[in-house]
Amino acid sequence: MTRLIADISMSLDGYVAGPNATLEEPLGEGGERLHEWIFKLESWRAPHGLEGGEINANDEVVAETLRATGAVIMGRRMFSGGSGPWETDPNSRGWWGDNPPFGVPVFVLTHHSRDPLPLEGTTFTFVTDGIEPALDQARAVAGDKDVFIGGGASVVQQYLNAGHLDELQVHVAPMLLGSGVRLLDGLDPTIRLEGTRVISSPDVTHLRYQVVR
Amino acid sequence: MTRLIADISMSLDGYVAGPNATLEEPLGEGGERLHEWIFKLESWRAPHGLEGGEINANDEVVAETLRATGAVIMGRRMFSGGSGPWETDPNSRGWWGDNPPFGVPVFVLTHHSRDPLPLEGTTFTFVTDGIEPALDQARAVAGDKDVFIGGGASVVQQYLNAGHLDELQVHVAPMLLGSGVRLLDGLDPTIRLEGTRVISSPDVTHLRYQVVR
Repeated sequence: MTRLIADISMSLDGYVAGPNATLEEPLGEGGERLHEWIFKLESWRAPHGLEGGEINANDEVVAETLRATGAVIMGRRMFSGGSGPWETDPNSRGWWGDNPPFGVPVFVLTHHSRDPLPLEGTTFTFVTDGIEPALDQARAVAGDKDVFIGGGASVVQQYLNAGHLDELQVHVAPMLLGSGVRLLDGLDPTIRLEGTRVISSPDVTHLRYQVVR
Repeated sequence: MTRLIADISMSLDGYVAGPNATLEEPLGEGGERLHEWIFKLESWRAPHGLEGGEINANDEVVAETLRATGAVIMGRRMFSGGSGPWETDPNSRGWWGDNPPFGVPVFVLTHHSRDPLPLEGTTFTFVTDGIEPALDQARAVAGDKDVFIGGGASVVQQYLNAGHLDELQVHVAPMLLGSGVRLLDGLDPTIRLEGTRVISSPDVTHLRYQVVR
Protein backbone atom coordinates (compact mmCIF):
# COMPACT_ATOMS: atom_id res chain seq x y z
CA MET A 1 0.00 0.00 0.00
CA THR A 2 1.20 3.50 -0.73
CA ARG A 3 2.20 5.80 2.11
CA LEU A 4 0.50 9.12 2.86
CA ILE A 5 3.04 11.94 3.12
CA ALA A 6 2.81 15.57 4.16
CA ASP A 7 5.78 17.71 3.19
CA ILE A 8 5.55 21.46 3.70
CA SER A 9 7.57 24.60 4.46
CA MET A 10 7.02 26.22 7.85
CA SER A 11 8.45 29.25 9.65
CA LEU A 12 10.21 28.64 12.96
CA ASP A 13 7.10 30.00 14.68
CA GLY A 14 4.98 27.37 12.98
CA TYR A 15 3.24 29.19 10.12
CA VAL A 16 2.74 27.87 6.57
CA ALA A 17 1.14 31.11 5.36
CA GLY A 18 1.13 34.72 6.48
CA PRO A 19 -1.97 36.75 7.35
CA ASN A 20 -4.39 38.34 4.86
CA ALA A 21 -4.10 35.98 1.89
CA THR A 22 -5.37 37.32 -1.45
CA LEU A 23 -5.49 36.02 -5.03
CA GLU A 24 -2.34 38.01 -5.74
CA GLU A 25 -0.66 36.86 -2.54
CA PRO A 26 -2.19 33.44 -1.84
CA LEU A 27 0.40 32.66 0.83
CA GLY A 28 -0.46 35.82 2.76
CA GLU A 29 1.79 38.66 3.80
CA GLY A 30 5.37 37.44 3.95
CA GLY A 31 4.35 33.89 3.08
CA GLU A 32 6.38 33.75 -0.14
CA ARG A 33 9.56 34.00 1.96
CA LEU A 34 8.81 30.54 3.35
CA HIS A 35 9.57 29.11 -0.08
CA GLU A 36 12.62 31.15 -1.06
CA TRP A 37 14.83 28.14 -0.37
CA ILE A 38 12.94 26.01 -2.91
CA PHE A 39 12.55 28.52 -5.76
CA LYS A 40 16.26 28.35 -6.54
CA LEU A 41 16.46 24.56 -6.84
CA GLU A 42 16.70 22.69 -10.13
CA SER A 43 14.16 20.09 -8.96
CA TRP A 44 11.58 22.83 -8.33
CA ARG A 45 12.37 24.93 -11.40
CA ALA A 46 12.12 22.10 -13.96
CA PRO A 47 8.43 21.20 -13.35
CA HIS A 48 7.65 24.93 -13.36
CA GLY A 49 9.19 25.28 -16.85
CA LEU A 50 12.27 27.17 -15.61
CA GLU A 51 15.83 26.36 -16.59
CA GLY A 52 18.88 26.05 -14.36
CA GLY A 53 18.88 26.01 -10.60
CA GLU A 54 21.00 24.70 -7.77
CA ILE A 55 21.72 21.00 -7.39
CA ASN A 56 22.59 20.37 -3.74
CA ALA A 57 21.32 18.58 -0.63
CA ASN A 58 18.13 20.69 -0.53
CA ASP A 59 17.53 19.89 -4.18
CA GLU A 60 17.86 16.17 -3.52
CA VAL A 61 15.31 16.39 -0.67
CA VAL A 62 12.79 17.92 -3.09
CA ALA A 63 13.69 15.60 -6.00
CA GLU A 64 13.31 12.56 -3.75
CA THR A 65 9.77 13.58 -2.78
CA LEU A 66 8.80 14.33 -6.38
CA ARG A 67 10.12 10.95 -7.56
CA ALA A 68 8.15 9.15 -4.85
CA THR A 69 4.85 10.96 -5.46
CA GLY A 70 2.12 9.15 -7.41
CA ALA A 71 -0.83 11.39 -6.56
CA VAL A 72 -1.54 14.66 -4.76
CA ILE A 73 -4.38 15.64 -2.41
CA MET A 74 -5.05 19.33 -1.75
CA GLY A 75 -7.69 21.54 -0.20
CA ARG A 76 -10.01 23.64 -2.33
CA ARG A 77 -8.21 26.85 -1.42
CA MET A 78 -4.92 25.48 -2.65
CA PHE A 79 -6.65 24.66 -5.92
CA SER A 80 -8.31 28.05 -6.26
CA GLY A 81 -5.62 30.28 -4.74
CA GLY A 82 -7.74 31.37 -1.79
CA SER A 83 -11.41 32.16 -1.44
CA GLY A 84 -11.73 33.99 -4.75
CA PRO A 85 -14.06 33.37 -7.69
CA TRP A 86 -12.14 30.25 -8.75
CA GLU A 87 -13.26 28.47 -5.63
CA THR A 88 -16.87 28.02 -6.70
CA ASP A 89 -16.84 28.74 -10.45
CA PRO A 90 -17.36 25.30 -12.04
CA ASN A 91 -15.58 26.43 -15.19
CA SER A 92 -12.43 27.80 -13.55
CA ARG A 93 -9.04 26.20 -14.06
CA GLY A 94 -8.03 27.28 -10.56
CA TRP A 95 -4.91 29.13 -9.60
CA TRP A 96 -2.37 26.91 -11.38
CA GLY A 97 -2.93 27.90 -15.03
CA ASP A 98 -2.97 25.64 -18.09
CA ASN A 99 0.21 23.81 -17.18
CA PRO A 100 0.20 22.92 -13.48
CA PRO A 101 3.50 21.68 -12.03
CA PHE A 102 2.23 18.46 -10.44
CA GLY A 103 2.74 15.86 -13.18
CA VAL A 104 0.48 13.38 -11.37
CA PRO A 105 -3.28 13.22 -10.69
CA VAL A 106 -4.50 15.77 -8.13
CA PHE A 107 -7.53 15.24 -5.87
CA VAL A 108 -9.16 18.40 -4.54
CA LEU A 109 -11.19 18.27 -1.31
CA THR A 110 -14.22 20.52 -1.82
CA HIS A 111 -17.92 20.91 -1.13
CA HIS A 112 -18.54 22.05 -4.71
CA SER A 113 -19.17 19.13 -7.02
CA ARG A 114 -17.77 19.44 -10.54
CA ASP A 115 -16.44 17.27 -13.38
CA PRO A 116 -12.74 16.38 -13.50
CA LEU A 117 -10.54 19.06 -15.07
CA PRO A 118 -7.93 17.58 -17.41
CA LEU A 119 -4.93 19.85 -18.00
CA GLU A 120 -1.44 19.28 -19.36
CA GLY A 121 0.18 16.55 -17.27
CA THR A 122 -2.43 16.74 -14.51
CA THR A 123 -6.09 16.02 -14.04
CA PHE A 124 -7.81 17.69 -11.10
CA THR A 125 -10.53 15.46 -9.64
CA PHE A 126 -12.94 17.07 -7.18
CA VAL A 127 -13.93 14.95 -4.19
CA THR A 128 -16.97 16.03 -2.17
CA ASP A 129 -17.46 13.08 0.18
CA GLY A 130 -14.57 13.55 2.58
CA ILE A 131 -10.93 12.83 3.29
CA GLU A 132 -11.15 9.01 3.26
CA PRO A 133 -12.76 8.74 -0.20
CA ALA A 134 -10.18 11.21 -1.52
CA LEU A 135 -7.38 9.10 -0.04
CA ASP A 136 -8.88 5.92 -1.52
CA GLN A 137 -9.02 7.48 -4.99
CA ALA A 138 -5.50 8.87 -4.69
CA ARG A 139 -4.11 5.51 -3.53
CA ALA A 140 -5.83 3.77 -6.46
CA VAL A 141 -3.93 5.86 -9.02
CA ALA A 142 -0.62 6.19 -7.11
CA GLY A 143 0.38 2.58 -7.78
CA ASP A 144 3.37 1.78 -5.62
CA LYS A 145 4.23 5.46 -5.17
CA ASP A 146 3.21 7.76 -2.32
CA VAL A 147 0.19 10.01 -1.92
CA PHE A 148 1.38 13.54 -1.17
CA ILE A 149 -0.69 16.11 0.72
CA GLY A 150 -0.10 19.44 -1.01
CA GLY A 151 -1.81 21.49 1.71
CA GLY A 152 -3.13 23.57 3.24
CA ALA A 153 -2.62 23.23 6.95
CA SER A 154 -6.16 22.08 7.73
CA VAL A 155 -5.87 19.20 5.26
CA VAL A 156 -2.66 18.02 6.95
CA GLN A 157 -4.34 18.35 10.36
CA GLN A 158 -7.39 16.36 9.29
CA TYR A 159 -5.35 13.44 7.94
CA LEU A 160 -3.03 13.49 10.98
CA ASN A 161 -5.86 13.51 13.52
CA ALA A 162 -7.72 10.77 11.63
CA GLY A 163 -4.64 8.54 11.86
CA HIS A 164 -3.97 8.31 8.13
CA LEU A 165 -0.64 10.13 7.86
CA ASP A 166 2.48 7.97 7.59
CA GLU A 167 5.18 10.61 7.29
CA LEU A 168 5.50 14.32 8.00
CA GLN A 169 8.41 16.32 6.61
CA VAL A 170 8.63 19.93 7.73
CA HIS A 171 11.02 22.29 5.99
CA VAL A 172 11.78 24.85 8.72
CA ALA A 173 12.70 28.22 7.22
CA PRO A 174 14.86 30.44 9.47
CA MET A 175 12.25 33.18 9.81
CA LEU A 176 9.29 34.36 11.88
CA LEU A 177 5.90 35.24 10.41
CA GLY A 178 4.28 36.40 13.67
CA SER A 179 0.77 35.54 12.50
CA GLY A 180 -1.03 33.67 9.75
CA VAL A 181 -1.95 30.00 9.32
CA ARG A 182 -0.30 27.52 11.66
CA LEU A 183 0.57 24.08 10.33
CA LEU A 184 0.36 22.14 13.57
CA ASP A 185 -2.71 23.34 15.39
CA GLY A 186 -5.39 21.47 17.28
CA LEU A 187 -3.63 18.13 16.94
CA ASP A 188 -4.28 15.04 19.03
CA PRO A 189 -1.47 14.90 21.64
CA THR A 190 -1.57 11.09 21.67
CA ILE A 191 -0.15 11.02 18.13
CA ARG A 192 3.41 9.67 18.39
CA LEU A 193 6.21 10.88 16.17
CA GLU A 194 9.58 9.31 15.55
CA GLY A 195 12.32 11.48 14.10
CA THR A 196 13.78 9.66 11.10
CA ARG A 197 16.04 12.22 9.40
CA VAL A 198 17.36 15.76 9.66
CA ILE A 199 19.09 17.50 6.76
CA SER A 200 20.21 21.05 7.31
CA SER A 201 21.63 24.00 5.42
CA PRO A 202 21.71 27.74 6.21
CA ASP A 203 18.58 28.19 4.03
CA VAL A 204 16.35 25.56 5.59
CA THR A 205 16.26 22.56 7.93
CA HIS A 206 14.35 19.46 6.80
CA LEU A 207 12.86 17.58 9.76
CA ARG A 208 11.31 14.24 8.85
CA TYR A 209 9.08 12.24 11.20
CA GLN A 210 7.33 8.92 10.95
CA VAL A 211 3.90 8.80 12.57
CA VAL A 212 3.95 5.81 14.93
CA ARG A 213 0.76 3.74 15.13
CA MET B 1 29.48 42.61 26.39
CA THR B 2 27.75 39.35 27.27
CA ARG B 3 25.25 37.82 24.89
CA LEU B 4 21.59 37.20 25.74
CA ILE B 5 20.59 33.60 25.02
CA ALA B 6 17.28 31.76 25.05
CA ASP B 7 17.55 27.99 25.05
CA ILE B 8 14.39 25.96 25.55
CA SER B 9 12.68 22.66 24.71
CA MET B 10 9.68 22.83 22.37
CA SER B 11 7.30 20.30 20.86
CA LEU B 12 7.13 20.10 17.07
CA ASP B 13 3.81 21.96 17.29
CA GLY B 14 5.53 24.81 19.12
CA TYR B 15 4.59 24.36 22.78
CA VAL B 16 6.92 24.74 25.78
CA ALA B 17 4.25 23.66 28.27
CA GLY B 18 1.03 21.70 28.10
CA PRO B 19 -2.39 22.96 29.21
CA ASN B 20 -3.66 23.22 32.80
CA ALA B 21 -0.41 23.79 34.71
CA THR B 22 -0.55 23.15 38.48
CA LEU B 23 1.98 23.24 41.32
CA GLU B 24 2.34 19.47 40.98
CA GLU B 25 2.59 19.65 37.20
CA PRO B 26 4.11 23.08 36.51
CA LEU B 27 4.75 22.23 32.86
CA GLY B 28 1.09 21.37 32.30
CA GLU B 29 -0.41 18.13 31.02
CA GLY B 30 2.18 16.24 29.02
CA GLY B 31 4.74 19.01 29.43
CA GLU B 32 7.27 16.84 31.27
CA ARG B 33 7.68 14.78 28.10
CA LEU B 34 9.31 17.81 26.46
CA HIS B 35 12.29 17.33 28.75
CA GLU B 36 12.66 13.55 28.71
CA TRP B 37 15.69 13.92 26.46
CA ILE B 38 17.50 16.09 29.03
CA PHE B 39 16.69 14.17 32.22
CA LYS B 40 18.98 11.32 31.20
CA LEU B 41 22.04 13.46 30.52
CA GLU B 42 25.04 13.69 32.83
CA SER B 43 25.25 17.46 32.37
CA TRP B 44 21.66 17.86 33.60
CA ARG B 45 21.83 15.26 36.38
CA ALA B 46 24.98 16.62 38.07
CA PRO B 47 23.59 20.09 38.99
CA HIS B 48 20.40 18.36 40.19
CA GLY B 49 22.45 16.19 42.58
CA LEU B 50 21.97 13.00 40.57
CA GLU B 51 24.74 10.61 39.64
CA GLY B 52 25.47 9.01 36.28
CA GLY B 53 23.82 9.87 33.01
CA GLU B 54 24.57 9.75 29.33
CA ILE B 55 27.54 11.57 27.84
CA ASN B 56 26.79 12.13 24.16
CA ALA B 57 26.14 14.91 21.63
CA ASN B 58 22.96 16.01 23.44
CA ASP B 59 24.90 16.15 26.69
CA GLU B 60 27.55 18.34 25.12
CA VAL B 61 24.88 20.77 23.84
CA VAL B 62 23.60 21.17 27.40
CA ALA B 63 27.07 21.28 28.99
CA GLU B 64 28.17 23.94 26.52
CA THR B 65 25.24 26.20 27.50
CA LEU B 66 25.83 25.66 31.22
CA ARG B 67 29.54 26.48 30.88
CA ALA B 68 28.72 29.69 29.01
CA THR B 69 26.02 30.92 31.43
CA GLY B 70 26.92 33.64 33.91
CA ALA B 71 23.43 34.68 35.01
CA VAL B 72 19.82 33.59 34.49
CA ILE B 73 16.66 35.64 33.95
CA MET B 74 13.27 34.02 34.50
CA GLY B 75 9.63 34.98 34.85
CA ARG B 76 7.89 34.94 38.21
CA ARG B 77 5.95 31.80 37.33
CA MET B 78 9.11 29.90 36.62
CA PHE B 79 10.36 30.96 40.04
CA SER B 80 7.15 30.02 41.82
CA GLY B 81 6.09 26.97 39.82
CA GLY B 82 2.94 28.57 38.47
CA SER B 83 0.40 30.89 39.99
CA GLY B 84 0.33 29.26 43.40
CA PRO B 85 1.00 30.74 46.84
CA TRP B 86 4.76 31.00 46.19
CA GLU B 87 4.13 33.63 43.58
CA THR B 88 3.21 36.39 46.03
CA ASP B 89 4.36 35.05 49.41
CA PRO B 90 7.42 37.21 50.25
CA ASN B 91 8.83 34.44 52.43
CA SER B 92 8.60 31.62 49.91
CA ARG B 93 11.67 29.96 48.46
CA GLY B 94 9.78 29.34 45.25
CA TRP B 95 9.47 26.03 43.44
CA TRP B 96 13.16 25.10 43.35
CA GLY B 97 13.77 24.09 46.96
CA ASP B 98 16.82 24.82 49.14
CA ASN B 99 19.34 23.77 46.51
CA PRO B 100 18.35 25.18 43.11
CA PRO B 101 20.25 23.80 40.12
CA PHE B 102 21.34 27.11 38.57
CA GLY B 103 24.74 27.72 40.14
CA VAL B 104 24.71 31.36 39.03
CA PRO B 105 22.70 34.44 40.09
CA VAL B 106 19.05 34.37 38.99
CA PHE B 107 16.98 37.48 38.25
CA VAL B 108 13.20 37.04 38.55
CA LEU B 109 10.89 39.39 36.63
CA THR B 110 7.95 40.15 38.92
CA HIS B 111 5.55 42.84 40.05
CA HIS B 112 5.99 41.78 43.69
CA SER B 113 8.90 43.54 45.33
CA ARG B 114 10.93 41.49 47.81
CA ASP B 115 14.46 41.18 49.18
CA PRO B 116 16.98 38.95 47.45
CA LEU B 117 16.73 35.28 48.41
CA PRO B 118 20.16 33.70 48.94
CA LEU B 119 20.16 29.91 48.61
CA GLU B 120 22.90 27.33 48.10
CA GLY B 121 24.82 28.29 44.96
CA THR B 122 22.17 30.76 43.79
CA THR B 123 20.74 34.06 44.86
CA PHE B 124 17.32 34.98 43.45
CA THR B 125 17.04 38.72 42.91
CA PHE B 126 13.56 40.11 42.24
CA VAL B 127 13.33 42.85 39.61
CA THR B 128 10.16 44.90 39.45
CA ASP B 129 11.08 47.63 36.98
CA GLY B 130 11.06 45.71 33.71
CA ILE B 131 13.05 43.58 31.31
CA GLU B 132 15.82 46.12 30.57
CA PRO B 133 16.80 46.72 34.22
CA ALA B 134 16.78 42.96 34.77
CA LEU B 135 19.06 42.50 31.78
CA ASP B 136 21.38 45.24 32.99
CA GLN B 137 21.69 43.61 36.41
CA ALA B 138 22.22 40.17 34.89
CA ARG B 139 24.90 41.47 32.52
CA ALA B 140 26.69 43.16 35.40
CA VAL B 141 27.18 39.87 37.25
CA ALA B 142 27.68 37.62 34.21
CA GLY B 143 31.18 38.93 33.52
CA ASP B 144 32.28 37.68 30.12
CA LYS B 145 29.73 34.85 30.20
CA ASP B 146 26.22 34.83 28.70
CA VAL B 147 22.91 35.81 30.21
CA PHE B 148 20.50 32.91 29.84
CA ILE B 149 16.70 33.29 29.70
CA GLY B 150 15.26 30.40 31.68
CA GLY B 151 11.68 31.05 30.55
CA GLY B 152 8.80 31.06 30.30
CA ALA B 153 7.65 31.73 26.78
CA SER B 154 6.45 35.28 27.42
CA VAL B 155 9.84 36.30 28.78
CA VAL B 156 11.54 34.99 25.62
CA GLN B 157 8.95 36.83 23.50
CA GLN B 158 9.44 40.11 25.33
CA TYR B 159 13.23 40.07 24.93
CA LEU B 160 12.96 38.98 21.27
CA ASN B 161 10.43 41.67 20.35
CA ALA B 162 12.43 44.33 22.19
CA GLY B 163 15.51 43.47 20.12
CA HIS B 164 17.68 42.25 23.01
CA LEU B 165 18.03 38.56 22.15
CA ASP B 166 21.29 37.49 20.50
CA GLU B 167 20.76 33.76 20.15
CA LEU B 168 17.81 31.38 20.23
CA GLN B 169 18.35 27.65 20.59
CA VAL B 170 15.24 25.50 20.34
CA HIS B 171 15.41 21.85 21.32
CA VAL B 172 12.63 20.32 19.19
CA ALA B 173 11.22 17.19 20.84
CA PRO B 174 9.59 14.70 18.43
CA MET B 175 6.11 15.04 19.93
CA LEU B 176 2.88 17.00 19.72
CA LEU B 177 1.20 18.66 22.70
CA GLY B 178 -1.89 19.90 20.87
CA SER B 179 -2.45 22.79 23.26
CA GLY B 180 -0.68 24.71 26.02
CA VAL B 181 1.82 27.57 25.96
CA ARG B 182 3.44 28.39 22.63
CA LEU B 183 7.05 29.56 22.63
CA LEU B 184 6.95 31.65 19.47
CA ASP B 185 3.74 33.62 19.54
CA GLY B 186 3.01 37.22 18.69
CA LEU B 187 6.53 37.90 17.44
CA ASP B 188 7.58 40.78 15.23
CA PRO B 189 7.89 39.34 11.68
CA THR B 190 10.68 41.78 10.84
CA ILE B 191 13.02 39.96 13.25
CA ARG B 192 15.64 38.19 11.13
CA LEU B 193 17.09 34.83 12.07
CA GLU B 194 20.18 33.13 10.74
CA GLY B 195 20.55 29.40 11.28
CA THR B 196 23.96 28.76 12.80
CA ARG B 197 23.89 25.09 13.85
CA VAL B 198 21.76 21.96 13.83
CA ILE B 199 22.58 18.92 15.96
CA SER B 200 20.21 16.01 15.78
CA SER B 201 19.52 12.69 17.45
CA PRO B 202 16.41 10.48 17.59
CA ASP B 203 15.51 12.07 20.97
CA VAL B 204 15.70 15.73 20.02
CA THR B 205 16.88 18.20 17.36
CA HIS B 206 18.78 21.28 18.49
CA LEU B 207 18.14 24.25 16.17
CA ARG B 208 20.32 27.27 16.88
CA TYR B 209 19.68 30.73 15.40
CA GLN B 210 21.43 34.04 15.64
CA VAL B 211 19.14 37.05 15.74
CA VAL B 212 20.35 39.40 13.01
CA ARG B 213 20.27 43.11 13.75
